[in-house]
Amino acid sequence: MSKRIKIKALLESNETNIDVTVKGWVRTFRNNQFIALNDGSTNNNVQVVVDFENTDAALLKRITTGAALSITGTVVESIGKGQKIDIKAKEIEILGDSDPEKYPLQPKKHSLEFLREIAHLRFRTNTFGAIFRVRNSLSFAIHKFFQERGFVYLHTPVITASDAEGAGETFHVTNFDLDNIPRTDTNEIDYKQDFFGKATNLTVSGQLEGELGAMALSDIYTFGPTFRAENSNTTRHLAEFWMIEPEMAFYDLDDNMDLAEGLLKYVIKYALDNNREDIEFLTQRLQEEEKQKPQNERSEMSLLEKLQFCLDNDFVRLTYTEAIDILKDSTPNKKKKFQYLVEGWGTDLQSEHERYLVEKHFKKPVILTDYPKEIKAFYMRQNDDGKTVRAMDILFPGIGEIVGGSQREERLEKLEQRMDEMGIPKDELWWYLDTRRFGACPHAGFGLGFERLVLFVTGMGNIRDVIPFPRFPKNAEF
Amino acid sequence: MSKRIKIKALLESNETNIDVTVKGWVRTFRNNQFIALNDGSTNNNVQVVVDFENTDAALLKRITTGAALSITGTVVESIGKGQKIDIKAKEIEILGDSDPEKYPLQPKKHSLEFLREIAHLRFRTNTFGAIFRVRNSLSFAIHKFFQERGFVYLHTPVITASDAEGAGETFHVTNFDLDNIPRTDTNEIDYKQDFFGKATNLTVSGQLEGELGAMALSDIYTFGPTFRAENSNTTRHLAEFWMIEPEMAFYDLDDNMDLAEGLLKYVIKYALDNNREDIEFLTQRLQEEEKQKPQNERSEMSLLEKLQFCLDNDFVRLTYTEAIDILKDSTPNKKKKFQYLVEGWGTDLQSEHERYLVEKHFKKPVILTDYPKEIKAFYMRQNDDGKTVRAMDILFPGIGEIVGGSQREERLEKLEQRMDEMGIPKDELWWYLDTRRFGACPHAGFGLGFERLVLFVTGMGNIRDVIPFPRFPKNAEF
Repeated sequence: MSKRIKIKALLESNETNIDVTVKGWVRTFRNNQFIALNDGSTNNNVQVVVDFENTDAALLKRITTGAALSITGTVVESIGKGQKIDIKAKEIEILGDSDPEKYPLQPKKHSLEFLREIAHLRFRTNTFGAIFRVRNSLSFAIHKFFQERGFVYLHTPVITASDAEGAGETFHVTNFDLDNIPRTDTNEIDYKQDFFGKATNLTVSGQLEGELGAMALSDIYTFGPTFRAENSNTTRHLAEFWMIEPEMAFYDLDDNMDLAEGLLKYVIKYALDNNREDIEFLTQRLQEEEKQKPQNERSEMSLLEKLQFCLDNDFVRLTYTEAIDILKDSTPNKKKKFQYLVEGWGTDLQSEHERYLVEKHFKKPVILTDYPKEIKAFYMRQNDDGKTVRAMDILFPGIGEIVGGSQREERLEKLEQRMDEMGIPKDELWWYLDTRRFGACPHAGFGLGFERLVLFVTGMGNIRDVIPFPRFPKNAEF
Repeated sequence: MSKRIKIKALLESNETNIDVTVKGWVRTFRNNQFIALNDGSTNNNVQVVVDFENTDAALLKRITTGAALSITGTVVESIGKGQKIDIKAKEIEILGDSDPEKYPLQPKKHSLEFLREIAHLRFRTNTFGAIFRVRNSLSFAIHKFFQERGFVYLHTPVITASDAEGAGETFHVTNFDLDNIPRTDTNEIDYKQDFFGKATNLTVSGQLEGELGAMALSDIYTFGPTFRAENSNTTRHLAEFWMIEPEMAFYDLDDNMDLAEGLLKYVIKYALDNNREDIEFLTQRLQEEEKQKPQNERSEMSLLEKLQFCLDNDFVRLTYTEAIDILKDSTPNKKKKFQYLVEGWGTDLQSEHERYLVEKHFKKPVILTDYPKEIKAFYMRQNDDGKTVRAMDILFPGIGEIVGGSQREERLEKLEQRMDEMGIPKDELWWYLDTRRFGACPHAGFGLGFERLVLFVTGMGNIRDVIPFPRFPKNAEF
């Protein structure tokens, strides 16, 4: 028997009149004759032509949507259109049946909401096959980008004892029997008896630990899960998501912006080069979805065009202060169309403001820098004006903030002063401060929310559709 | 001013009489004249020659171990031995001081135990620089291996609601105020009020979710953190560790073994090709460490030889039953030298037995297959003998089990029967069973403990030294 060939490899080769074995799952079976078989290696199916007159009727009956088959046959030029080759089946083996009365995925359009409820099976649809292959390529492209530049991939801890950064609400991690939590004499929870001997939680960011690596290895990056226990039931938030956090010694904010823009372009290009068919399929999908919207709410560019546009254009760079001036003078602000009117310097930008800048004003990805220190984290480098810090946020069309970063405050005195002002406990972060005590240097870094990147590249609208098994309030299925 | 060049790139180029800027940290400063500067890009330092007669004494005093410097100078042929080039300094800038009275890392040998206590600074030593560069290469090699074979990298969830696999004790994840856990009318913990609306914990394995992906995409792999709340204070266990778990549709156990052996050889070769200097350094380190042991406890092969040996030899494959026969007849068993004597078929192998097979009997990596079903998980494919399952464990010298895997039970009836026998709740795993209901097929997979692989390739003895910030009982520092 011939060795199995994956469908992607088969469709890419042009050889005919050879015998092959393919294995996969039935997508459709038309006219008792044409099997569309998919094995997940590509969005495309191979068409298998069954000699139904000489095939056992009992076997034909078992060729149903979702069934797993092994098929050996001869590769021939296709008789249909849209595909170059078919397989003329010689031998069909049913590896696993799929009862059409019970199988939830039928060859028809299912809603994304329904598919979320059967996330264990949604990999088997065109849409989710494409999404998870694109997600895979983006993951690898991120590693490739950093490896080519000599960065060290650092696994920062998931369980931590400090929530010192104050980046958000955290999940507790404990080994206690929750029905019987040990107490001290004074009736406090006795964390000394917990697994780690202290209260621990799930990390909200690997940045602080990442900086420790950068202060020795020069350039590091993390790529791991991070957690927020925020009760956000939105299409942009998850309780568990993946983040990429590079930290670079001897980088200033300009170097940082160059790296982040370079990374985003590199990974988008990688997906376009390696997942063209998937992205074409997702472009089509989005166009069909948008047909249901009023004309003025549809995207001006298709998904493919939008991705190409990102590659072809420099991101616009401007300061927060300049952005505020633009927003104050903008038509939606003057006509009071914004939900939150922009009245002056100092307030944080809302999603509507970011989208206006990116989608209406510049029509390009935008990097905003030098935010007011009051709305940014303690570790960002303070500018001489006493008001702003060397922050940068990258804003993407349809997504909003996709990257947040800064040059870090390397001056011990300034850093400690800011920690005091903001009530960050210095004693808990003694190890972080040590990097400012011993061989400090200018350095910078950023965080890239991986699912937001996948959203952007796949054109999907809900973040729960771009991670295999989403975690959000009241949901931890599968 | 010239652009910064990393020390690795500088040492690899042969150009002299050019001006360069290097940035890094002082390892040593000898005779007020020779700075050994390291920037983490390589284990090697560049020697900077200071014209001390024409340099400000105050500045010279600040060139101390650990200080961060930016140095511009001319590349010249080295006057010393052991290096090809030096930099003749023209301009030295102190970016960050390092008070020699306070800096914990002095240019002398520190114990690994001491360095574990200052894990935030240990990246700055030769040993840990080498370890974490090797760890980085192994990570990337794993991705590269799977990407070249069309596997999809799948991020399985870290927070899960099921501990159905029963692979070990789990950590609870909760958003409850532990001081005030809500109760139901019947005084049970009211998990409906917890963040996810049910009790959740940290994953012990992504395998079951991985199988869901494989049943649509054919070949997937995970690479993420996993957790065990076991009170194991050993040199081989961590509470938080990284695991690689590939799952492949249409694979049997032989395919599975071929893939695992291929993966291990590929990543070891990648590290040897890309981290030769680091591994040579670690080989040297191990040799020096072993000098303190009695002759008969020292390794027969050096680290480099051992790695090369792994590449050059096929792994030995035999069944558990064959292994038991060998062990029963072995000298240490007959002379009662084993702590646990091997008396008959059915018991689990202890570390001493695995090491005997690998290190004494075969002197090669060993793959054991077809274990008794009683000592293996419910999802492993049952052999026709009714006694054994299609499991495989790969045993490595000095490490013991580095890979554990199996062909999975794809037959619904057999699987459910085994779950019933073992008390695994079928209703909780309805989604897992669905893959056996709809389009089941033969498939297989395995788990590779990443830190054990790093231990093997770096020759380190304690797993706490091969992960940046180890988590173990009573410890979650940094």
